[in-house]
Amino acid sequence: MDKIVYKAIGIIRSPFKEARGTPIQASAEGTASGRIELYPEYLPGLKDLDGFSHLILLYHFHKAGKGSLIVKPFLEDEEHGVFAVRAPSRPNSIGLSIVCLQRIEGNILYIDDLDILDGTPLLDIKPYVPAFDHRDNVKSGWLENNLDKLSITEDDGRFLKEEE
Amino acid sequence: MDKIVYKAIGIIRSPFKEARGTPIQASAEGTASGRIELYPEYLPGLKDLDGFSHLILLYHFHKAGKGSLIVKPFLEDEEHGVFAVRAPSRPNSIGLSIVCLQRIEGNILYIDDLDILDGTPLLDIKPYVPAFDHRDNVKSGWLENNLDKLSITEDDGRFLKEEE
Repeated sequence: MDKIVYKAIGIIRSPFKEARGTPIQASAEGTASGRIELYPEYLPGLKDLDGFSHLILLYHFHKAGKGSLIVKPFLEDEEHGVFAVRAPSRPNSIGLSIVCLQRIEGNILYIDDLDILDGTPLLDIKPYVPAFDHRDNVKSGWLENNLDKLSITEDDGRFLKEEE
Repeated sequence: MDKIVYKAIGIIRSPFKEARGTPIQASAEGTASGRIELYPEYLPGLKDLDGFSHLILLYHFHKAGKGSLIVKPFLEDEEHGVFAVRAPSRPNSIGLSIVCLQRIEGNILYIDDLDILDGTPLLDIKPYVPAFDHRDNVKSGWLENNLDKLSITEDDGRFLKEEE
């Protein structure tokens, strides 16, 4: 009853062919340009998207292992609950990145600031809107003292499926 | 092959018993307090989440109809592509809200700023982190000239499943 079934609406193409070495956030250094290949049947859904500079991408971490509810994240050598980290191995492995939209040509969206693995199945595109998505006076818990490591930290493959 | 199966990790409880009258964004007026009833098996995943003031909730719009790829959103009487609006009826009906975490008691999370229907299945909780999730110099497309209506606009049921 509690099963929820989605389907890929397209594929994300990026220079990151494997998890190791991929930036851990879209706001980190080392992100790259890439593209979304939206399946052609969804093309009408792009109408007026080109007026937005930034998009929220929701996607399926297809290479993530099942993982544990307690994890050691990339940015700190301490254990935290999986809901207090942004690691790809989660009960439902849904990824979220805010990327920069460069241009749209047909069903291809050219994107900057990608931190997503090549071949990742795309679930949804939403316009990023500061009036909806910005919050002030935010406390960032254990991350407060670890954000300085964002620029020097990259994926080391720790959340991969076991067969890889 | 492209089917992706998730499962609810809990249920969102709110005073909004039906779509009509529900706020259309967590940043709008008229939001309410409520709670997340996380299924007890996921309890360990909450470790250290209480250090964060804001959470990103991903959830399944369980009352949303299939909808069209071209929609008239709440904030404007013009048609836009579904990926250029935040409406609940989408190819994959995944909702995203940034809410305020008040406190956690066992597997119950007490939440402010809810814009979510009572009984909504929860898919994921992520910590909201400005260093990851804020962007500057953003263009908000067709929404730029319609954000002043956010405070006076609420759900009118247009994206409900047909049987309701």
